[in-house]
Amino acid sequence: MSLLVVGSVAFDCLESPYGKVERALGGAATYFAVAASFFTPVNLVGIVGDDFTEVDARIFHGRTIDLEGLERAEGKTFFWSGVYSQNLNERTTRVTDLNVFANFKPKLPEKYRSSKYVFLANIAPDLQRDVLEQVKVRPKLAALDTMNYWIERTPTELRETLRHIDILVINDAETRQLSSEHNLLRAARHIFKMGPSSLVVKRGEYGAMLVDKQGVFCVPAFPLEEPHDPTGAGDSFAGGFMGYLAAAGRTTDLYLRRAMVYGSVMGSFTVESFGLDRLRKLKRNEIHARARHFAKLTQFKL
Amino acid sequence: MSLLVVGSVAFDCLESPYGKVERALGGAATYFAVAASFFTPVNLVGIVGDDFTEVDARIFHGRTIDLEGLERAEGKTFFWSGVYSQNLNERTTRVTDLNVFANFKPKLPEKYRSSKYVFLANIAPDLQRDVLEQVKVRPKLAALDTMNYWIERTPTELRETLRHIDILVINDAETRQLSSEHNLLRAARHIFKMGPSSLVVKRGEYGAMLVDKQGVFCVPAFPLEEPHDPTGAGDSFAGGFMGYLAAAGRTTDLYLRRAMVYGSVMGSFTVESFGLDRLRKLKRNEIHARARHFAKLTQFKL
Repeated sequence: MSLLVVGSVAFDCLESPYGKVERALGGAATYFAVAASFFTPVNLVGIVGDDFTEVDARIFHGRTIDLEGLERAEGKTFFWSGVYSQNLNERTTRVTDLNVFANFKPKLPEKYRSSKYVFLANIAPDLQRDVLEQVKVRPKLAALDTMNYWIERTPTELRETLRHIDILVINDAETRQLSSEHNLLRAARHIFKMGPSSLVVKRGEYGAMLVDKQGVFCVPAFPLEEPHDPTGAGDSFAGGFMGYLAAAGRTTDLYLRRAMVYGSVMGSFTVESFGLDRLRKLKRNEIHARARHFAKLTQFKL
Repeated sequence: MSLLVVGSVAFDCLESPYGKVERALGGAATYFAVAASFFTPVNLVGIVGDDFTEVDARIFHGRTIDLEGLERAEGKTFFWSGVYSQNLNERTTRVTDLNVFANFKPKLPEKYRSSKYVFLANIAPDLQRDVLEQVKVRPKLAALDTMNYWIERTPTELRETLRHIDILVINDAETRQLSSEHNLLRAARHIFKMGPSSLVVKRGEYGAMLVDKQGVFCVPAFPLEEPHDPTGAGDSFAGGFMGYLAAAGRTTDLYLRRAMVYGSVMGSFTVESFGLDRLRKLKRNEIHARARHFAKLTQFKL
């Protein structure tokens, strides 16, 4: 089943101990869509400026990514510049220029309005809710990402949006901030009262954790000797996770666990190179090989 | 096969947000021996002062723990006092009184000198080596724990001891410090050159990781809503890990993975209560139930 994503399309200036890229295509919706498209068709809702060229759009070509929902506006595309610490575990934002993204009012093309799987990437909670309201029938699965900025600045809007969400996909710091609980199990119970019935906690180099009424499922991060750039890893995780679920059309525990693994697989590829470089040349057989490698990494017999 | 451990037996003053215990029996060798004794007989080499009473010794009674190697000296038993932060993820040492431990010269009873499984808990590297030399035939498996103090103060002695070790069992900060590598895979390759063929990295709330020539195996920490006291979790992990291997008498990948799970099981019980309170009343069937719970926590089908 096709999958709808709304979120940022951006140009990033990325610097890590492994190098620097001045103008890399990025943005949550971009990473998500490219990662998810290995599993299922994706409908992308976002906005770019007139500096977004045909060469930039090539990342979407030859993939099952529909761009009717990608608005083109006068002005510049969202720009972010950041630098990573020696160990890649801290990043400093140098520049955030919202540009055309500042006035983004997502509008769903008619054909997107029957989406069964919806991912609301990290944008203002009222815009996330607006997108969800444009979908005619309650989706089978609505998932949402957010960040400290919205948790602090628009808590009421975020709470209202969360009431309509099935799966919240956020990192550990955001989980703790949103729930005011350090312990992730207690945090999950708190968050379930806000609406979501499942919580996916992205823990960076420590992997990811799914908490729902079935219990807890943990998957480690794939051990890499030379991660180059963590930008987009979380969005690629979400793309693999939602892409797998939409392709399977099932959301039982068995499928959610597999989705966690495929999410981790996609995140692990993204960090291997700068920006979208690794996803750009990724082959489907590499995805399945790495999923089997995750099994080797975690499976045991009692 | 029986298992030898050398390390500290101590009294701890423990304080966490969940309470305070003024004089709890502790020490690495104590946690290790109690945890391992659920799997296999243990020979304990350590030292206590004349304040160590028959009531204190009761923790070892009714378990397959041999105390012939537990020396009793004039003076006080090793004393440690520490306080944990609100989230239990930081601890501050208030007092470390080595007492009789300061002059500890481990001497193995004759019957311990044919041990096939040896665990050298965190003590001075030259004492660890001395113990290993008292074992007549090279053990089937020698494992070692250490800490920042020895890595900084006695690097030469530690390097010499590591040459004779099969498995190094340390935490992530120690791994990085010893290898001067942040990345754990590169750290492992560095450490393999020092002697050990396997590295077990204890990562606290993030679980544990085994790296050897077979590859990598990860196990998460057991998610607990109310951890009370992390003291001894790492030593209990080591006890479950080595205890399981000694009981199995096998060290192939299948058994090492199971040992990682049983180590995590024992560590998870220890943090549930203060000091040894949880291990004290633990039943063998609870261990197996939790191991099955670890399977539920991590297993997936592709």
